[in-house]
Amino acid sequence: MKNTPSKTLGDKQGGIPKKLSTESYKGVRDFFPADMAIEKKIFDIWRGVCEKYGYEEYGASVLEPAELYRAKSGEEIVNEQTYTFIDRGEREVTLRPEMTPTVARMVAARRRELTFPLRWYSIPNLFRYENPQRGRLREHWQLNVDIFGVEGIEADVEIISVAYNIMKAFGAKDEDFCIRINSRHMIQKEIENLLDDKTSYPKAARLLDKKEKMSSEEFQNEWSKISKKPFVINGVMARERTNELQGKLTLLGIKNVMFYPFLMRGFDYYTDIIFEIFDTNQENRRALFGGGRYDNLTSLFGGDKIPAVGFGMGDVTMRDFLETHDLLKNLQIPTSADYYICVVSPAEADAATKIAEKLRAKGSRVAVDFSYKKIGDQIKNADKRGIPEIIVIGEDEAKNGIYKIKNLKTGEERNPE
Amino acid sequence: MKNTPSKTLGDKQGGIPKKLSTESYKGVRDFFPADMAIEKKIFDIWRGVCEKYGYEEYGASVLEPAELYRAKSGEEIVNEQTYTFIDRGEREVTLRPEMTPTVARMVAARRRELTFPLRWYSIPNLFRYENPQRGRLREHWQLNVDIFGVEGIEADVEIISVAYNIMKAFGAKDEDFCIRINSRHMIQKEIENLLDDKTSYPKAARLLDKKEKMSSEEFQNEWSKISKKPFVINGVMARERTNELQGKLTLLGIKNVMFYPFLMRGFDYYTDIIFEIFDTNQENRRALFGGGRYDNLTSLFGGDKIPAVGFGMGDVTMRDFLETHDLLKNLQIPTSADYYICVVSPAEADAATKIAEKLRAKGSRVAVDFSYKKIGDQIKNADKRGIPEIIVIGEDEAKNGIYKIKNLKTGEERNPE
Repeated sequence: MKNTPSKTLGDKQGGIPKKLSTESYKGVRDFFPADMAIEKKIFDIWRGVCEKYGYEEYGASVLEPAELYRAKSGEEIVNEQTYTFIDRGEREVTLRPEMTPTVARMVAARRRELTFPLRWYSIPNLFRYENPQRGRLREHWQLNVDIFGVEGIEADVEIISVAYNIMKAFGAKDEDFCIRINSRHMIQKEIENLLDDKTSYPKAARLLDKKEKMSSEEFQNEWSKISKKPFVINGVMARERTNELQGKLTLLGIKNVMFYPFLMRGFDYYTDIIFEIFDTNQENRRALFGGGRYDNLTSLFGGDKIPAVGFGMGDVTMRDFLETHDLLKNLQIPTSADYYICVVSPAEADAATKIAEKLRAKGSRVAVDFSYKKIGDQIKNADKRGIPEIIVIGEDEAKNGIYKIKNLKTGEERNPE
Repeated sequence: MKNTPSKTLGDKQGGIPKKLSTESYKGVRDFFPADMAIEKKIFDIWRGVCEKYGYEEYGASVLEPAELYRAKSGEEIVNEQTYTFIDRGEREVTLRPEMTPTVARMVAARRRELTFPLRWYSIPNLFRYENPQRGRLREHWQLNVDIFGVEGIEADVEIISVAYNIMKAFGAKDEDFCIRINSRHMIQKEIENLLDDKTSYPKAARLLDKKEKMSSEEFQNEWSKISKKPFVINGVMARERTNELQGKLTLLGIKNVMFYPFLMRGFDYYTDIIFEIFDTNQENRRALFGGGRYDNLTSLFGGDKIPAVGFGMGDVTMRDFLETHDLLKNLQIPTSADYYICVVSPAEADAATKIAEKLRAKGSRVAVDFSYKKIGDQIKNADKRGIPEIIVIGEDEAKNGIYKIKNLKTGEERNPE
């Protein structure tokens, strides 16, 4: 990190104070309460499903040593797409671009004390250095769900079940999405057989990962640069590996699963089963999120391998999906208070505060309007905030402590309980 | 931001793969589930109290334009204590060291659409570049509570009530802490009268802020560098200003309030009433957190002033307080699951998964042990996680779908409902 030259307080230009911009940093979001409420609801649903499966929440800092990402995240990601800087202690620091290296680091750090299987989830914010002109976001939040210590396919089944049940918890129907599965390990073997030189596998994998976004011609053209053999993948070995998984998911009632031999997922660390949730909406067919098995990642920290399966699911993608499929309206966002107290004048402020405190003591959420605007305007404020009931405190109410509660929808008035 | 030179995948040294460190970045914390559960509980209590007063949660990115902090946070904070770097678009970016400039920016950005009074809270993570050897944390989470648009003392009363009720919600007794109050504006007038040159007020304010940590001699010595007049503060004007506040707090049953004329608070932007919650523990007397009125901050973004009162309360300080006063034990941390299913062998995995899914469908949280370790070890796992009840699935249970639920504390077995 380089410190910038010190400037004087006030930062004036020719004696006139410079007006500060109200804009956020490029490519990140401000969450005003209405947006934050949706974001929180999405997190709540994520948490609810994870906790039904016994997953425990963990957390870490956005700052990580840069070396954590060099080994396995994929070269392009670390060198071109991260925020990486040098701090004053000459440490190279990265704003985490993904959570998997962090969770692998944490599990490796306490491998002797932890008991497996370990079920962990987290909702970190992640950073990517995107080119500003593309208008893509530089920060997003991502649910990360991982199970450690299970070698068998039960872990893959469970992780995909969690992903599926999250989609269902948001109100998605089976036909709104499908679960694509593949075996990275098996497809790698098949691809390597097509290569003149096995060391060009990473290149081939990256090409396959982009296949769906390319025309057939473009793809063939790029492929011919990697191998002289024609590109023919039948996926026999991978299909065999995924058939068992598909069968077990069917037993659990998860039927919108399909084998897709070209599925690769971006990260280098996957070792076997990989999957992605794919939006089947005809106008917006695309991968929503995915994950897979990564049995080798913890061994980068020394010690034996710890088998692991997990996935990540972003808030921006989730919100887009909910909007596309008109599911946002089902989210049941809570109002910010149960009662809104309108106060006629400062003379009634103490009485209003006392009434509010009594209602709070009984468990209610109460906001008091201390603006002393016209009562009509104060009521409008309550309505704008979606607060269902109001209490008006004027001279009489302040004196006697007796007041009515008015429901803004029905217009009915009632006495407090 | 300066990008570091690209390195090749694997990062080998003489052909041997380098072992990655499992340590987090210097000065930040990993939250393993047991710690995260405490952290979440603290946040839940914070949220609960704020929402009782009708405060709405907002959020923003940790990345902010650096200029946001130059004007009002205090020179030392921006230049010596922040993470600030230049991105590839030549933008100067800061990892936010405090939330108040962000909330002021957001309120100013939508001042025309928002209706006042506005009650907002947030639980951001904040960064300070502390000298590593001091062992102080570089990242912490901080509850920020602010009310905008109320000129009168009602806002100060409410904000202090929220702070007080948070302390009570954690189980603190009135004698465990006191609320120190002062008027920054009034005390400034008094200090300025003591100065040979009014422009040295910021220096004097910073000295006063540190008064409690210095010996009387040290203080007098430093003071003599600023002013030739003797340091005598009687606080008459400030006391007058705070008396009304103290009276209104007393009416609400908040009695552990004291006027303290040397209270300054660190930030430059406070304009009138300031307060801090002070730990009265004899072995650990210190300020826990505080806040105050800052009516001018939004005007840095143009437009009229918007009156504002708020406070910030850190997670590290809160945890320390709970530990010091032995209140952590009252937090009621939930267990990670209701049932732990122990599975004898892989042959029973599908049956165990089915039983788990049925229990989840009824609303229970269920974790399944797919390790196939000895059942005794699996039960130990459940116990270690604090999960109250277990279900063992062997050949018979898998075949018949009939199983018992065993309570680990009482040892009693029961049939599922």
